[in-house]
Amino acid sequence: MTEDALVIFTPSGKRGRFPLGTPVLTAARQLGVDLDSVCGGRGICSKCQISPGYGEFPKFGIHVDDEALTEWNAVEERYKSKRGMLDGRRLGCQAQVMGDVVIDVPPESQVHKQVIRKSATQRDIVMDPATRLLYIEVAEPDMEEPSGDFERVVQALREQWQVDAVEADLALLRRLQPVLRKGAWKITVALHKGNHDARHRILEIWPGFHEGGIYGLAIDLGSTTIAAHLCDLRDGAVLASSGLMNPQIRFGEDLMSRVSYAMMNPGGDVEMTRTVREAINALAATIAAEAHVAEADIFELVFVCNPVMHHLLLGIDPVELGQAPFALATSGSLSLPARDLDLTHVSRAAQVYVLPCIAGHVGADAAAVALSEAPDQSEDMVLIVDVGTNAEILLGNKTRVLACSSPTGPAFEGAQISSGQRAAPGAIERVEIDAVTKEPRFKVIGCDLWSDDPGFAKATEASGITGICGSGIIEAVAEMRMAAIVDGSGLIGSADQVGTPRCRAEGRTNSYLLHDGAAEGGPVIFVTQTDIRAIQLAKSALYAGARLLMDTMGIDKVERITLAGAFGAHISPKHAMVLGMIPDAPLENVTSAGNAAGTGARIALCNRAARDAIEATVHNIHKVETAIEPRFQEHFVNANAIPHAVDLFPHLAGIADLPQVSYNTSGAGSEGRRRRKG
Amino acid sequence: MTEDALVIFTPSGKRGRFPLGTPVLTAARQLGVDLDSVCGGRGICSKCQISPGYGEFPKFGIHVDDEALTEWNAVEERYKSKRGMLDGRRLGCQAQVMGDVVIDVPPESQVHKQVIRKSATQRDIVMDPATRLLYIEVAEPDMEEPSGDFERVVQALREQWQVDAVEADLALLRRLQPVLRKGAWKITVALHKGNHDARHRILEIWPGFHEGGIYGLAIDLGSTTIAAHLCDLRDGAVLASSGLMNPQIRFGEDLMSRVSYAMMNPGGDVEMTRTVREAINALAATIAAEAHVAEADIFELVFVCNPVMHHLLLGIDPVELGQAPFALATSGSLSLPARDLDLTHVSRAAQVYVLPCIAGHVGADAAAVALSEAPDQSEDMVLIVDVGTNAEILLGNKTRVLACSSPTGPAFEGAQISSGQRAAPGAIERVEIDAVTKEPRFKVIGCDLWSDDPGFAKATEASGITGICGSGIIEAVAEMRMAAIVDGSGLIGSADQVGTPRCRAEGRTNSYLLHDGAAEGGPVIFVTQTDIRAIQLAKSALYAGARLLMDTMGIDKVERITLAGAFGAHISPKHAMVLGMIPDAPLENVTSAGNAAGTGARIALCNRAARDAIEATVHNIHKVETAIEPRFQEHFVNANAIPHAVDLFPHLAGIADLPQVSYNTSGAGSEGRRRRKG
Repeated sequence: MTEDALVIFTPSGKRGRFPLGTPVLTAARQLGVDLDSVCGGRGICSKCQISPGYGEFPKFGIHVDDEALTEWNAVEERYKSKRGMLDGRRLGCQAQVMGDVVIDVPPESQVHKQVIRKSATQRDIVMDPATRLLYIEVAEPDMEEPSGDFERVVQALREQWQVDAVEADLALLRRLQPVLRKGAWKITVALHKGNHDARHRILEIWPGFHEGGIYGLAIDLGSTTIAAHLCDLRDGAVLASSGLMNPQIRFGEDLMSRVSYAMMNPGGDVEMTRTVREAINALAATIAAEAHVAEADIFELVFVCNPVMHHLLLGIDPVELGQAPFALATSGSLSLPARDLDLTHVSRAAQVYVLPCIAGHVGADAAAVALSEAPDQSEDMVLIVDVGTNAEILLGNKTRVLACSSPTGPAFEGAQISSGQRAAPGAIERVEIDAVTKEPRFKVIGCDLWSDDPGFAKATEASGITGICGSGIIEAVAEMRMAAIVDGSGLIGSADQVGTPRCRAEGRTNSYLLHDGAAEGGPVIFVTQTDIRAIQLAKSALYAGARLLMDTMGIDKVERITLAGAFGAHISPKHAMVLGMIPDAPLENVTSAGNAAGTGARIALCNRAARDAIEATVHNIHKVETAIEPRFQEHFVNANAIPHAVDLFPHLAGIADLPQVSYNTSGAGSEGRRRRKG
Repeated sequence: MTEDALVIFTPSGKRGRFPLGTPVLTAARQLGVDLDSVCGGRGICSKCQISPGYGEFPKFGIHVDDEALTEWNAVEERYKSKRGMLDGRRLGCQAQVMGDVVIDVPPESQVHKQVIRKSATQRDIVMDPATRLLYIEVAEPDMEEPSGDFERVVQALREQWQVDAVEADLALLRRLQPVLRKGAWKITVALHKGNHDARHRILEIWPGFHEGGIYGLAIDLGSTTIAAHLCDLRDGAVLASSGLMNPQIRFGEDLMSRVSYAMMNPGGDVEMTRTVREAINALAATIAAEAHVAEADIFELVFVCNPVMHHLLLGIDPVELGQAPFALATSGSLSLPARDLDLTHVSRAAQVYVLPCIAGHVGADAAAVALSEAPDQSEDMVLIVDVGTNAEILLGNKTRVLACSSPTGPAFEGAQISSGQRAAPGAIERVEIDAVTKEPRFKVIGCDLWSDDPGFAKATEASGITGICGSGIIEAVAEMRMAAIVDGSGLIGSADQVGTPRCRAEGRTNSYLLHDGAAEGGPVIFVTQTDIRAIQLAKSALYAGARLLMDTMGIDKVERITLAGAFGAHISPKHAMVLGMIPDAPLENVTSAGNAAGTGARIALCNRAARDAIEATVHNIHKVETAIEPRFQEHFVNANAIPHAVDLFPHLAGIADLPQVSYNTSGAGSEGRRRRKG
């Protein structure tokens, strides 16, 4: 009878021989197998669940007896009856090795578990958070061997978790003695070590074993919209997402007007800083309540933002960003306590990480997009457009990555549009217009039916049809172009020219009636000429930025395009190309990535190595400054037409009608209706 | 003609060959010679002054020509005419090597200069402060090579000062851009790196070259007296010292009564914390004003204190220190921002260092005494007594060091004494009593004359004679004993028994009239029986603590004694031994060390390596807990007599009369006057 046995772990394949009686968790530790534990093997936390395999394993060349592990014990029984455990599972700290055995570690028992991302084209995140929970048993004070209580906590962390170099702030030291005694010298510690910390930091302590979780906020701090995701720091799950309008809008609609406000009003920057911090606090409170998470359990925040938002968040006067050379006070990543930013609706000890900025007006949000979409790892040339009030545009591949920030304006977020609104239930998000009848149908957020479905009215009774959001206006304009309601220059035709009473004269221009909700007491939704102009200006800025990068790169076409942004629904690639927001490309290579900046923030929140990676990557992203490049203006003007005045869109021509019509009755080209592919 | 030359530096003796034209400062840097510079060789700061030697140097085997260095230049001339420079001096950054030369670096030009301490028995301090001033020239922003302003500051520090790993807090980042531009990209930085910091920290920035200094406060936070020394962090000079009574006295006269106050009054600890922080702020403001130093230029504070004071300063409830096992919340050293302690009368960015505690009631003040007096480096067995409301007592040598804290009470600081007061001008600090006539004479603080000098009245007109301080009462009681005014049991005799009208009956006891100031409108100063008892109790606690340590050490005599404490004048060794405050020892081996705890604080303020050293040393100091040792009470009772009921004082017998009298008329031993050496 041998006194040791072979233990093989899957999926890692690591194996070793261990004396009979060794707990599976111990074997895992010694082999370096990723098997989680919070209580350190005391049978309290049940994180170390494993699935033993029995029978023949020709692949490994072993046979596993039914008695390979010790019997199911009282600790496991108690846990199973209280919380439930899948059949076949054992607790790794309770089950001891009694013979050769194969042990599978399920994903949820891995510390560095993968977080599956929704789109198949995106990389998965591996969990490597900066904050974790550790349960320790602390030695009691001994008058023979005197030491402080904190020193014995540090000793327990070293001996039980191999953690060295631990510090705590005064607020924690004040709470230490009562908590230790209340827990009868057993406590749970929230331990934090950011990617720039030399030492571990104790953020929080609880008496005994703490059942609660630890959470983080990933926040995309945009000029128009602030979006936040509350994530579980143990497994990366998003518990809730929420957003609100950036209240700094009252100081200036766009970034430069906010910088001007600061320059012209002493203390204006301080006002704007206070305003945005209050908004973040409100958002944190809302999202915590929504997710039924205690604010005090939110231990980390990650921010992505452009440089003006970055400086205002930090309380740095953004005046230098208002003029060449657009010098940032600091461009590197920042790690600091949340209370330094007056953020109070999170743990008192919460830690903030702000991604690095690239340069000038290309900020941490662009860095976040780069982290999420990883152009620097792409074989082919990819263009990434993150649509917002300022669009971050990245172009590159493994060899070289360029970036710029294009002042799009808030039209794509629903502002400046006559019936525009933020993405919310009731907002029109998709539009189709019959090219013959000129009749529209649409979908609203919160309902899966098209408006021409008989059940639509009832299904939208609760939300109503309240307006049109960013993705909706893009589709509307593109559909109007394809249906010849709008001509190549962006002019809406009259009822006579177009052939539909839906075109109504308004002063000297025409509007197109998308939905008349008066009968239901709702708004009448038009797409006006002013709306079209706003969209033209916005999309021209985007296109011009992309062309500028292409010029700098020395190319005239891209292979792949990713559209991202803080929209409710994803932007339709076809409609985006019809509009001329993006350069021509094979439609199957144009994809949507949702809120890439927000995703980048989440990646950085869940994985410290990603923070190191993006900090290194930003140095290799070359910034192009749209504000001073001479060709930007030229590209901008050419891009006003829908889709474009000059550039050919060969791929688009194959999939969409772009009628050559002109409704400019006062000048050349008023030839009336002619349809041809062009 | 050679193209290089030999440069020899004194006093270090370092030498090397350098190309002709090499500035002396550059040669020093390359050889690792300690030569200061703040402006990095730009001829602005004049810290790098050196004295070249000319002529024959047989010791070095070289001859130095008159032309060994380049000629005196305009920069040096400008500095000399503005500020003055000793003849023969040159600026190391301006003078270039043109031939073999001997260069002496005067002490004031050394970074690690020595600070000479007043007493010859004390080790000198070598300057190694955590904070220093560095002048840098920062690259301007470049749109081709974009980087943040802070990143370029970090680059300048690295390139011009070889400083790596620099951080700054938000408050500094907010000020950065305006200061850089005001200074035309030249700034002075106050850079800090404590002994536990992984990175350097920028505490402050000024545009251009900053002429001002950097300062630190060394604070001895005693239960009765708070004493502070304002030191120049560049050369260790003490600019001003000041003190005040600890206002926590209103919550409890001694430590245990303050702990009780906290235990019995919810929020009592918070009150006491706020009170002591306000006092420290007031003291900082006072001392800065006195020294004509701007509060904003005080960048460091070092605190020494016993564990109860330590916890209350930090805002930690001291309740656990009120009962065995007397567990401290933390015993290690602490490094934290001054604003975490609400200290506002210093730089906003000031950093605090708190020395480590030893254990139980033996705190950071004892550690400071150990740092100052270094018993762990002593060949012979030394007893160090730091007299205060709690006396820290250390006994040991290279082999072993013991420590205890003895609850002496505030009598030695003037409290509980009928005419007692803190050391201040006008306080009686020295007393002599004629053994025959029983007439006294005394000295007061602020005047060098004895009171029997004809000029005394006029010389003390301004201060008056206001009371008696700690050293004064010690000498008074000892002199009264030697003059047979007080018997061995501490009883003051009557006028008849003693033979002087100065002994006045007061109720059932007698008092001794030291000074009648009524005629000048000043107080009448008696030494009362109650005063004697207070002194007896205080000195018994001291003696018992010392005896306890000697028992633990297994010895019955010590070779050397050091007396320390926050007194105005030093305690007279002879009188201390007559009183029986300390065990018998050869009088020439009993010395005074002034405020050793305060000195230890100053050493830690000026030298980071000393912080490391004391942190290591405290682990090797074994604590004896007077509160629970059974023999303490026995030793205490025996020590009540003056000098002692039991122990022999052979050395003392040789130098002082200890008349065997007894004034106990109600019991045995009332034999009247008999004088014999005993």
